[in-house]
Amino acid sequence: MFEDDTMLETIEKMLEEKEYLALRSTLTEMQEADIAALFGEMREDDLPLMFRILPKEMAASCFSYMEPEVQQLLIEEFSDRELTSILDGLFVDDAVNLIEEMPANVVHRIIQNVPPDKRSQINMILRYPKNSTGTIMTTEFVELREFMTRDDVFENIRRSGVDKETVYDCYVTDAARHLIGVISVKDLIMSENGEVTVGELMEPDVISVNAMDDREEAVNIMKKYGFIALPVTDSENRLIGIVTGDDAIEVLEEETTEDIALMAGMTASEKTYFMTSVFETWKNRVPWLMFLMISSVFTSKILQHFEGRLAANAALIAFMPVIMGTAGNAGGQSSATIIRALSTEEVKIRIPDILRIIWKELRVAFFCGLTLAAGNFLKMLAVDNVTVGVAVTVSVSIAAIVVIAKLIGALLPIGARKIGLDPAVMASPFITTICDALSLLLYFRAAAMILGI
Amino acid sequence: MFEDDTMLETIEKMLEEKEYLALRSTLTEMQEADIAALFGEMREDDLPLMFRILPKEMAASCFSYMEPEVQQLLIEEFSDRELTSILDGLFVDDAVNLIEEMPANVVHRIIQNVPPDKRSQINMILRYPKNSTGTIMTTEFVELREFMTRDDVFENIRRSGVDKETVYDCYVTDAARHLIGVISVKDLIMSENGEVTVGELMEPDVISVNAMDDREEAVNIMKKYGFIALPVTDSENRLIGIVTGDDAIEVLEEETTEDIALMAGMTASEKTYFMTSVFETWKNRVPWLMFLMISSVFTSKILQHFEGRLAANAALIAFMPVIMGTAGNAGGQSSATIIRALSTEEVKIRIPDILRIIWKELRVAFFCGLTLAAGNFLKMLAVDNVTVGVAVTVSVSIAAIVVIAKLIGALLPIGARKIGLDPAVMASPFITTICDALSLLLYFRAAAMILGI
Repeated sequence: MFEDDTMLETIEKMLEEKEYLALRSTLTEMQEADIAALFGEMREDDLPLMFRILPKEMAASCFSYMEPEVQQLLIEEFSDRELTSILDGLFVDDAVNLIEEMPANVVHRIIQNVPPDKRSQINMILRYPKNSTGTIMTTEFVELREFMTRDDVFENIRRSGVDKETVYDCYVTDAARHLIGVISVKDLIMSENGEVTVGELMEPDVISVNAMDDREEAVNIMKKYGFIALPVTDSENRLIGIVTGDDAIEVLEEETTEDIALMAGMTASEKTYFMTSVFETWKNRVPWLMFLMISSVFTSKILQHFEGRLAANAALIAFMPVIMGTAGNAGGQSSATIIRALSTEEVKIRIPDILRIIWKELRVAFFCGLTLAAGNFLKMLAVDNVTVGVAVTVSVSIAAIVVIAKLIGALLPIGARKIGLDPAVMASPFITTICDALSLLLYFRAAAMILGI
Repeated sequence: MFEDDTMLETIEKMLEEKEYLALRSTLTEMQEADIAALFGEMREDDLPLMFRILPKEMAASCFSYMEPEVQQLLIEEFSDRELTSILDGLFVDDAVNLIEEMPANVVHRIIQNVPPDKRSQINMILRYPKNSTGTIMTTEFVELREFMTRDDVFENIRRSGVDKETVYDCYVTDAARHLIGVISVKDLIMSENGEVTVGELMEPDVISVNAMDDREEAVNIMKKYGFIALPVTDSENRLIGIVTGDDAIEVLEEETTEDIALMAGMTASEKTYFMTSVFETWKNRVPWLMFLMISSVFTSKILQHFEGRLAANAALIAFMPVIMGTAGNAGGQSSATIIRALSTEEVKIRIPDILRIIWKELRVAFFCGLTLAAGNFLKMLAVDNVTVGVAVTVSVSIAAIVVIAKLIGALLPIGARKIGLDPAVMASPFITTICDALSLLLYFRAAAMILGI
């Protein structure tokens, strides 16, 4: 681990004083990921020069670690020849990631300059439907045949020279490239006999996914079985790629970002925050705000209906926000909990789970409601300077709405999943809108009963 | 991949008809993770018998894949001898995970029955502070010495027989167990010369973490460099464990669960939803609800202040919820976006990033505000049956509060991180509470200016 700031200063000084040879040898000693991070900290004007100083064999790897914004900036400075050379050095899946992050004009230049032998592989991956496993697979992997011995396998790995994590699980195919087995380097090492063949050691029941399957399914399989790689086949069971651990982590993170966006009432961007344009951000956010705003027409109608009585009992107005707010918060807690439990697959859509959730949320809601009602009663008498009747009305409303809100919050995500929607849609903003209307109805009903208005 | 339901029926039928031998051979053919999933679907009464039918060599591995509830149920049925045998078969990190998930009385029985040779390792791990790297590390790994040749290494791996992912990156230590290098099995395979020693091939600049470092830091390093394992050292740079890929994914998922809980205004449980008691759930949720409820005293005070004027202009009351709601939703969108960008480390706490965020959110907010104001104006005239003055007042308030809410939503998480708080605290519930008060102030101010009340 190095100290970011000192290193940054040292390198900027070397650039300034044109000590390019010394700089190159400093960079040679560093980790590619650290160099890429430095690029994100440096002055933009220095980036192209700095990149050209990098030893050629590190350049592509460093480039693949950089943030999309830095990559875009560099590509815009590259000559066509430089661009081709970098693209040649990238793994196919990194090239695809790059294309997915860049704006259209940059993508056009990349596609034009990609070396011909990679172009067909990249195009194949780009043709798979959004969120399918095909889009996240790597087409560079070790492919073995049944008759190979341990030495053949090691020789094969030596020749293919692909990335580390893609060599430890090796897949066995027949002459027509059908997937017929899997063997790990560990199995080969564990075998005392060097002459044993792949066919004898391999596991013939290979768990694989189809390239058209949802990428989340692929990642779930990897998590479930603890795989470091997962083979991907086409519709005829021919091996066409593998999903590796870093791709799986990336998918997990993207799915989390998507969930969090949905839970906050917006469409997730497919790009990072800074790479998403103002127009796209607006387009991801405004329909939800508009929908929620229009939905509030119910709340307005309820209030218009009670307008006269509210005007006559103005003390009640001041406590509408606390009731609406508490309802929304209580419901939001339950919905977030259940949405998360659904996405980690702890909770499944089946009767026993649903009954247990209802029973648990009911008890939690009951105790939360009681505590809050008591707290509110004391607070209103102490701070708000109201009559006991108003304090009782508000407190009773809070207790009741907390129970209702928690049940709605817990059950809506389950209902959404049941009808094929993403449960994350049923989070705080949506629950809040429903609870606003319900809590006001309840409040006015309580006021009518307790205060006789 | 097998069909869950058919398999479940087949197995339940075999159990019923006491075809235990046939059942055992069916299970032998299955993947451990799939068997564990079956345990989650079966009748509780069948579980102990089913577990005893499992081939002995699969039992511990199956057990480690099971959900905590099933594990607890089985442990309660196990004799002390059975429990010891299972614990003996578990990897140390799986045993630690188990202990962390179980309620206190079960933990007590586990600790009593753990085989002596594992007890000290487990105790060492359990002594590390919460969320430290020490708590997620594995103490079973391959440790090499500089003078070993490739064959020595493979022999060493054969003897240690540890889990797959823990053999591919091997760590080199000196006589005093200081970490002095790292070598991958791939490097060994790639070397043509079988007589080359570990010392010649190893990379002496090893990136490692201290066992006391935050576990999130360990995981971030693994993500940054694309490591499949990361060595963990004590304060004297002695190698004491490694963090593996599946531990890293588990930490990522737990941190996400924690973030989502915080963002919904509650304390995350350290156990799964069903393993958390009603009392604990209440304790995680009620303080936040109480705090937010008490905070609404400001909103109430504002409304009490305007009570008279509201009673005289009752039409305004009906539109308070839409203004408060829209403000909360708009602010919640921005805060969720920034909280996520902070946690994926796209956004860093530095002036250029902050300025770019402000500039971007301002523009997005401006366009969102305009769109919503226009939509609201049309809706109010079409549906709500109000005067143009009231429609203008509400629409102008919405446009203005959206801009304010989005700025607050974007900046509060950054401020929180700056002062060392978790940014996720500054999500929807908190933003909503602030926006409620601000939006009402703005609304009444707009009403005073436009309607002259």
